Amino acid sequence: SFSRGMQTVTLIPGDGIGPEISTAVMKIFEAAKAPIQWEEKNVTAIKGPGGKWIIPPEAKESMDKNKIGLKGPLKTPIAAGHPSMNLLLRKTFDLYANVRPCMSIEGYKTPYTDVDLVTIRENTEGEYSGIEHTIVDGVVQSIKLITEDASRKIAEYAFEYAKNNQRASVTAVHKANIMRMSDGLFLRKCRQVAENYRDIKFTEMYLDTVCLNMVQDPTQFDVLVMPNLYGDILSDLCAGLIGGLGVTPSGNIGANNVAIFESVHGTAPDIAGLDLANPTALLLSAVMMLRHMGMHDYSKKIETACFNTIRDKKVLTGDLGGKSKCSEFTAEICQRVRDMD
Amino acid sequence: SFSRGMQTVTLIPGDGIGPEISTAVMKIFEAAKAPIQWEEKNVTAIKGPGGKWIIPPEAKESMDKNKIGLKGPLKTPIAAGHPSMNLLLRKTFDLYANVRPCMSIEGYKTPYTDVDLVTIRENTEGEYSGIEHTIVDGVVQSIKLITEDASRKIAEYAFEYAKNNQRASVTAVHKANIMRMSDGLFLRKCRQVAENYRDIKFTEMYLDTVCLNMVQDPTQFDVLVMPNLYGDILSDLCAGLIGGLGVTPSGNIGANNVAIFESVHGTAPDIAGLDLANPTALLLSAVMMLRHMGMHDYSKKIETACFNTIRDKKVLTGDLGGKSKCSEFTAEICQRVRDMD
Ligand SMILES: CC(C)[C@H](C(=O)O)[C@@H](O)C(=O)O
Ligand SMILES: CC(C)[C@H](C(=O)O)[C@@H](O)C(=O)O
Repeated sequence: SFSRGMQTVTLIPGDGIGPEISTAVMKIFEAAKAPIQWEEKNVTAIKGPGGKWIIPPEAKESMDKNKIGLKGPLKTPIAAGHPSMNLLLRKTFDLYANVRPCMSIEGYKTPYTDVDLVTIRENTEGEYSGIEHTIVDGVVQSIKLITEDASRKIAEYAFEYAKNNQRASVTAVHKANIMRMSDGLFLRKCRQVAENYRDIKFTEMYLDTVCLNMVQDPTQFDVLVMPNLYGDILSDLCAGLIGGLGVTPSGNIGANNVAIFESVHGTAPDIAGLDLANPTALLLSAVMMLRHMGMHDYSKKIETACFNTIRDKKVLTGDLGGKSKCSEFTAEICQRVRDMD
Repeated sequence: SFSRGMQTVTLIPGDGIGPEISTAVMKIFEAAKAPIQWEEKNVTAIKGPGGKWIIPPEAKESMDKNKIGLKGPLKTPIAAGHPSMNLLLRKTFDLYANVRPCMSIEGYKTPYTDVDLVTIRENTEGEYSGIEHTIVDGVVQSIKLITEDASRKIAEYAFEYAKNNQRASVTAVHKANIMRMSDGLFLRKCRQVAENYRDIKFTEMYLDTVCLNMVQDPTQFDVLVMPNLYGDILSDLCAGLIGGLGVTPSGNIGANNVAIFESVHGTAPDIAGLDLANPTALLLSAVMMLRHMGMHDYSKKIETACFNTIRDKKVLTGDLGGKSKCSEFTAEICQRVRDMD
């Protein structure tokens, strides 16, 4: 569905280390001659006409036009009184699927090897509905909202993903023993969709059991699909197994191929501007983006250069156990990309 | 608050392997000459006068009288239409604190060492309120209920626990960035209570961040306090770090020392009655019980015998990597208990 010529992508560099790691990604893309043109947009919460928080119109228009975005970390100051911009972006473009592949990285030692799973998180409702009330003084309710539509859509996304990525199984993660109606509905939809994918094994498991099994043997898992909050938790847990948010890519996908890929680590204000940040998470998110756009040769090349750099352990940023600067790590990946030509 | 004479405890053997592991615990207590008398009660859901599910009156009366219970695993058939008996017990006796110490066991290898933390879970409300509605067809709401009272009580419990067990820090686990009112209230209460315990370090952390940090380095955590569902998830995750539910004790504590200690693993129907079950989780829960009752000499003796048996690796049940029967493992612990006299 994408043409083979130059494609324009909305780039949201973000706060803190965001600009540095965005520059790193752009350099590596240039070295790889990836046919991507960047349209840089700032995203700071502003108040729209009705007094509602919105993302700036220029950023919205850019995304509406380009359909694809790449995003660095954004500050989420609770005190500012506006919702997390990360969430607002997911909502604004109805990016209903949050996809986080989680693969062990050769050469980067953690207690686990051979992790190769994908968490697929419903990204628009559940515990993230934002609906809360005070019933009486000292008694508060938060609403977890589960709909048939969103549950079916995310289940379908998970099975399509499994099919298109040669994945053998999908596990629905839930607490339908406790939230019988809401998680029950989610689970029912997963079961129904599963019937249309007879070649893919379907299992269901309680969230607590998944967490326990995950830390005991993550290799037993393949594709996991779940409501919003459970995905928030499980995707971070899984990131921890392979080395943390500094090396984990993430994509938010909506209808008609609209998507924003993002690094999900923080803005690291303590090292911002010091050329010390690790651009890997944003780079691997950009690699996911290329794959999403059908540019498999470029994605493969860049991914390989990145993984080989980490595997060889010669040029690494501090968080990866090395002493190199962000720019040196970037230059090393660029060199390897060029050497592949 | 407990007299030094014989104490009566309500024993709920439970389903599946429940009776076998209960027998094991009774034998070991006998070998240790622990001054405990068991009052065995069955707990099967029955319908009360108003049509509500209740626990059998004899079990209720026994607990009301004895105040302390020990419980094996109970089947939780969703299909049966009644709530989980585990939850009903927690509710019936207002056991508002679920306490799960999580310590690495010498000789039982997992990817982690030196884990020594305690999860303290609010046990009565939150996502477990049981309040759910269908708004319109295909749109379901579950209510997460957070109250000032319950939040203050569990925060106080956590800090008291930390104080009485020489623990250095308490971490409040939350998603107040998303559920600003409900988790916000919980967090506010934790902060307030923290001010009365200046010697104990207080930190707050997002649930997703805790999960990530937990699998990267669990030794950074000490006492963790959190709403119901987060505790369900995190306690299982932590159990996974040290070897699973087969070796993890649990206690449900209410006001006036009322408490039920329980193994939180399943009923293992596949091996029930075959003398293959591992009684460790129930035994360590019983050890927690003794400690709760102020019987520290007995608890220490039994715990040491159990840990030494595991450490020496000669007599172990199948799940612990050995070939011994439940009765042989039990006899070994009994022998070690007797040898300590
Ligand atoms: C930043 C925060 C609102 C967000 C979330 O809770 O979803 C983050 O943790 C994530 O996983 O992307
Ligand atoms: C059995 C189940 C209802 C229970 C829960 O969800 O609390 C269990 O997972 C636990 O942790 O004790």
